[in-house]
Amino acid sequence: MINKAPIGVFDSGVGGLTVVKEIMNQIPGEDIIYFGDTARLPYGSKSKKTVITYTRQIVRFLMNKDIKAIVIACNTASAFALETVKSEVDIPVIGVVKPGAKLAASTTQNGRIGIIGTEGTIQSGIYSEFLREINPKIKVYGKACPLFVPLVEEGLADDSVTFEMAKRYIGLLLEKHIDTLVLGCTHYPLLRETIRKVVGEDIVLVNPAYETAKALLDVLRDQGLRNDSTPKLNHKFYVSDGAEKFRQFANTILPCEVMETKDINIEELG
Amino acid sequence: MINKAPIGVFDSGVGGLTVVKEIMNQIPGEDIIYFGDTARLPYGSKSKKTVITYTRQIVRFLMNKDIKAIVIACNTASAFALETVKSEVDIPVIGVVKPGAKLAASTTQNGRIGIIGTEGTIQSGIYSEFLREINPKIKVYGKACPLFVPLVEEGLADDSVTFEMAKRYIGLLLEKHIDTLVLGCTHYPLLRETIRKVVGEDIVLVNPAYETAKALLDVLRDQGLRNDSTPKLNHKFYVSDGAEKFRQFANTILPCEVMETKDINIEELG
Repeated sequence: MINKAPIGVFDSGVGGLTVVKEIMNQIPGEDIIYFGDTARLPYGSKSKKTVITYTRQIVRFLMNKDIKAIVIACNTASAFALETVKSEVDIPVIGVVKPGAKLAASTTQNGRIGIIGTEGTIQSGIYSEFLREINPKIKVYGKACPLFVPLVEEGLADDSVTFEMAKRYIGLLLEKHIDTLVLGCTHYPLLRETIRKVVGEDIVLVNPAYETAKALLDVLRDQGLRNDSTPKLNHKFYVSDGAEKFRQFANTILPCEVMETKDINIEELG
Repeated sequence: MINKAPIGVFDSGVGGLTVVKEIMNQIPGEDIIYFGDTARLPYGSKSKKTVITYTRQIVRFLMNKDIKAIVIACNTASAFALETVKSEVDIPVIGVVKPGAKLAASTTQNGRIGIIGTEGTIQSGIYSEFLREINPKIKVYGKACPLFVPLVEEGLADDSVTFEMAKRYIGLLLEKHIDTLVLGCTHYPLLRETIRKVVGEDIVLVNPAYETAKALLDVLRDQGLRNDSTPKLNHKFYVSDGAEKFRQFANTILPCEVMETKDINIEELG
């Protein structure tokens, strides 16, 4: 019975939908239950303690929906809370950082990797940690880009202002002669074209969302949890604020139509 | 006894400190208890329901500190939650919107006023409402500026990128021939110089923080609550996340030194 259970995915807001999109593409036939913590976003500027508190509340909410696996589709929450969640639930838990780091390590030719992400993700040093575990010789250069998320949410992904900020943020990494750049925040794939203009054609952009879906598929297969035969999918989307605004944004990103999004009081549940 | 009680002031984060600064300047001798909801900021993009929930929790926290008056030093919370708070507590409650609207109405010569603020404040239409109550002939033009707060927090208040965004946001209001512009978010006084460059010398910039402190002083005097004789002030600062980061920022804004800031779990208290 268990393999028909849905997969729980969460993020601080809409960014995690870039991961959901990859799961839908690479692992068809699975139901998804998504939670976006829109009442308390962003996570990227908040402390480890606070992000762990919020993550625990969301995991409790998802576990009550009888999910078979959890995807932390947020780099900041993966950086701060993955180990905590792993030690507290008995189903597989996948973060976005490890799969992203793995792909970056196998991509780089010159051993110089740049990471862009939120303040929390960069300050945690988690990408460096995973990358050095894989190959201690790799050099890692991180840069927090706090304006990228608000710029995306303002609809300025392809704007000259975003290009200017991208030049400043990423220019510092280009000086380090990186050949691989990890888009270490789930919003950043939406900035791919602007970032591409800044870095040119020779640098490989790594999107952890793609690799996370691949890692999830491996885990589901290994543990006999894979279900590719659902006749009619029944994805569910929950947020802590602004259900309708979220629904509209989701429909610009996902390959299927989101018909309904529900508002949840996550604090009371926690 | 009651007139020695402190004044409670709150905001979603650091922006309300621009109001605290005015209170310290205009109403010396009063103790202040400040709460910044840094674990859940920003409020400006969140729904009325959520902002009311957060405001209620904070008001409960402040009321437990035996305060004699409350200042809602946040335009979004003033727009969404002032009436709720007023109906639920028995001490004076002052928001920033009404004082700002009053000053703008008495300032304008041509009856055309621009308002800049968060999405929540602008969509609420609260400034228009107050301004039309004062003078139904006044024309009000609002523009949400969602990037201003992140730009200030990134330390780019005087940067060319901020100037470019200010031109786009405020340019739309200049086309309406406004002669008065309300800085309808407590962060925006920190952008005053950049905004001044965009609007030129002929437009009056209204900072509601100044007028809010004046309104507070009037209320304290009217109700016999004024205390100008505290020998040694004992201001207290609380936040829901990142106490040390807040303390450092506060010390760049306030005329007195903030020695300590305490972290509070506002969800549990609420």
